[in-house]
Amino acid sequence: MFKRPPPLIAPNAPRGRSLFVSSLRVEPFPGYRIKSVFEPPPLPKLDNETWWGIGPPNDDWKTKLLIFPLNITVPSEILEYLKWRLDTHRPLTPPLEGMAHQYGMNTKLLQEVIDYWKTEYNWTERELFLNQYPQYKLNIQGLHIHVVHKNSFEDGYKVVPILLLHGWPGSVREFYELIPYLTKPQEGRKIIFEVIAPYLPGNPNNLVLRILSSGGQAGPGGGPDGRPLQEPHGQARLRQVLCARGDFGAVILHHMAVLYPESILGFHSNMCVVHTPRAFLLNLLGTVFPSLNVRPDHHDRLYPLSEYFQRMLRETGYLHLQATKPDTIGVAMNDSPIGIAAYFLEKFITGTNRTWQLREDGGLKEAFSYRDLIDNIMIHWVTQSATTAFRLYAETFNKAHHGLGIMRKALFVVVWSRPSHPVRVPTACARFKYDFYASDAALRELYPNLLQLTDHEGGHFAAFQLPELFANDLYDAVEKFEEYHKNNVKTE
Amino acid sequence: MFKRPPPLIAPNAPRGRSLFVSSLRVEPFPGYRIKSVFEPPPLPKLDNETWWGIGPPNDDWKTKLLIFPLNITVPSEILEYLKWRLDTHRPLTPPLEGMAHQYGMNTKLLQEVIDYWKTEYNWTERELFLNQYPQYKLNIQGLHIHVVHKNSFEDGYKVVPILLLHGWPGSVREFYELIPYLTKPQEGRKIIFEVIAPYLPGNPNNLVLRILSSGGQAGPGGGPDGRPLQEPHGQARLRQVLCARGDFGAVILHHMAVLYPESILGFHSNMCVVHTPRAFLLNLLGTVFPSLNVRPDHHDRLYPLSEYFQRMLRETGYLHLQATKPDTIGVAMNDSPIGIAAYFLEKFITGTNRTWQLREDGGLKEAFSYRDLIDNIMIHWVTQSATTAFRLYAETFNKAHHGLGIMRKALFVVVWSRPSHPVRVPTACARFKYDFYASDAALRELYPNLLQLTDHEGGHFAAFQLPELFANDLYDAVEKFEEYHKNNVKTE
Repeated sequence: MFKRPPPLIAPNAPRGRSLFVSSLRVEPFPGYRIKSVFEPPPLPKLDNETWWGIGPPNDDWKTKLLIFPLNITVPSEILEYLKWRLDTHRPLTPPLEGMAHQYGMNTKLLQEVIDYWKTEYNWTERELFLNQYPQYKLNIQGLHIHVVHKNSFEDGYKVVPILLLHGWPGSVREFYELIPYLTKPQEGRKIIFEVIAPYLPGNPNNLVLRILSSGGQAGPGGGPDGRPLQEPHGQARLRQVLCARGDFGAVILHHMAVLYPESILGFHSNMCVVHTPRAFLLNLLGTVFPSLNVRPDHHDRLYPLSEYFQRMLRETGYLHLQATKPDTIGVAMNDSPIGIAAYFLEKFITGTNRTWQLREDGGLKEAFSYRDLIDNIMIHWVTQSATTAFRLYAETFNKAHHGLGIMRKALFVVVWSRPSHPVRVPTACARFKYDFYASDAALRELYPNLLQLTDHEGGHFAAFQLPELFANDLYDAVEKFEEYHKNNVKTE
Repeated sequence: MFKRPPPLIAPNAPRGRSLFVSSLRVEPFPGYRIKSVFEPPPLPKLDNETWWGIGPPNDDWKTKLLIFPLNITVPSEILEYLKWRLDTHRPLTPPLEGMAHQYGMNTKLLQEVIDYWKTEYNWTERELFLNQYPQYKLNIQGLHIHVVHKNSFEDGYKVVPILLLHGWPGSVREFYELIPYLTKPQEGRKIIFEVIAPYLPGNPNNLVLRILSSGGQAGPGGGPDGRPLQEPHGQARLRQVLCARGDFGAVILHHMAVLYPESILGFHSNMCVVHTPRAFLLNLLGTVFPSLNVRPDHHDRLYPLSEYFQRMLRETGYLHLQATKPDTIGVAMNDSPIGIAAYFLEKFITGTNRTWQLREDGGLKEAFSYRDLIDNIMIHWVTQSATTAFRLYAETFNKAHHGLGIMRKALFVVVWSRPSHPVRVPTACARFKYDFYASDAALRELYPNLLQLTDHEGGHFAAFQLPELFANDLYDAVEKFEEYHKNNVKTE
């Protein structure tokens, strides 16, 4: 046999810590492993005892949960530096004649946002806004998790704890308008929520610290199985509602719902992800016969067949790059405030309504305010979380993680991937008309306990864009979850 | 029928100026258009009369070729600003424990390069170096093309004009060490070259101007068909050798060789791109039986089948993003010098030897010097060419361009794409052992006049890395081209 080049994985990398591409299961033909086509692998036993921190752990890290109160305070020198960077950024390349956002972020609009950022955006006031809810730093398995925790007590209302999880390029900021609807009594409701909203590991996680990059884990392999997040809740022994604003939050909570069903009241998601072969075929068929998958007034959320793969290709470049070279693209995004602004705003435009790519103003002000969007950008840029947040993609789209069989990934691995475990906890899926990622078909294949399926106007960042509507969807879902558990004393 | 969302192309965009994804030919089954599977479309008649400039053209732009001498001079305020940016860049996110470049650019190495850039790199000296060859600004169809033009006259030597074309992320800087080998008499050779080396449109193109972004075209649709480049040479009526250092230069010259064979002596490329279905199958077979495609001592340039698609996926994220959202990613890369450095250096590491991703030093110093690599980064950053250079990808990977049938694109469109026209001019293909992109199989299918096929050590940036070897390969090829034309008075 001829000599092979060494595989592209560091020789000293621990087993199971492989990369995206050392990685994707490639089998020459579908059905190569007959058994794996029909059966998911046994659920992994995760030890919850991996140390993800920098340097050696403390002796008592497995038994002692460290919680510190936290307030967001950004050192003034960072703010001054930012001001200088915004004042002196290099001139933007003008968009091509007649183009809005078809080649990506329109720089005329970006300039408008930058001007607002420079002249009207007031961080002192925004810091007060962001600190309106109690926040804590949790030290779990070596990770520093920044959590917003809003308790609620109200006579005559049952308090239900809810875990809200954001995605990329978002942050807990997306939930700030939603939280009052959940923590103050609402007319006609009998429950009220205790909100627990952590920043994702690797995403902004320690605004108070100057050594900001410690938010991410030190070693490779931190996939989205929710282990660090599950730990404190397991200790609390509370039955919780999991709720995601779609995107990566949904992916992580999906994992938790599969792995830890006994501590979960129900799963509410606005990105119910079904990447089974059947879903794939039904989604394809839906491009020709939309009534198969969505109700008539949502038909126009489906692309015709001729645009189906184009849509996927056009909107997944960021994912492709972040899953393979997070550390490369992270350098520019950590360094350049206008660069990360462009990168994020493009997502908020396309995610909220894909046709807004055709409008020079991107429709941004119809759904959000520049101020609120900049809040989210600030949170990422000030904490330098670009690289560590991108790495979550690399840790998810790899063979080791994929092999767990907890969740299939999209597109190329659909045909070859092993079936995954269904989410057996009561589930509610909210679909938003202009969301890029919402699943249309075969939802019950992966969510057999789907108790609620709703279709709304709105986009990918639904909780941020339409907090009241989102809250009502959530209340409806939780009422059904409670009803379900009343009738099924033992879930499993 | 149900209401469709508007297609994602601006209503006022001229026909044929579509985007990547409005774009890729998607046919439900291969063979859907039987005829198109076997026959390329007729060659397009390009008018050479499109105005690509900003604003309205001058009256005489079609008849008058404007040439100005040019020297690279960077205003001192840009250099001071750069110094400030390098001194105050935000801290880099450290790589994950035990990882070299598997997650992308290793920031420890990047810090080393930045330190060199700040302390030892001397632009005044580099400017003298870059200005050692005569340079001109050509005004063609509204584009400003920056050209290095080195004449040669030597008694007893035949002067052959040669067009050298760089790719991305490169520049004419890559050819600076090669040019002396081409323009000074070499032992045992009877020819000498007149070198014409333009910066690609959209790539650094007017270092002297402060309004630097005018290097790119103003309107969408400027694909790689070489029209602006062909024009002046057509006027000169010289028979030229086309030579590429692989990458986008090869793509553009391939187009020119198909479209304008009568003015071309021969085509030398170190990225002979064959994306026919047969090549695809042979390359796949070659993963198992490498002897099918390359000679024994080059076997280890082939990946095993299990890594074949992974390799493609792992290394094409940048292409995916640049082809779909060039204006988004361009903002950060235009703004951040360390960001574009990371983005480029990753390519120089992986392209030169893919196994160097496993070395923390990336092997960079084995093939290049930090100084020379920074020259190239400087040229891009100072001229703010990031976005305009990226746009070349968007203009190439789209339906309109693809429909020309001049050149197939890789990967997903292989099976569905229409056959393309072969390159009928005499051709020489140089393959470098560690080049990521070199074609292995079915070369003669696309290059029926393949007169020379060589295999060398070295990587993607061969002319930059191994100028003497590259020059010799070129001399050998041109001797064969001349011989060929002697025996075939009429080419076509």
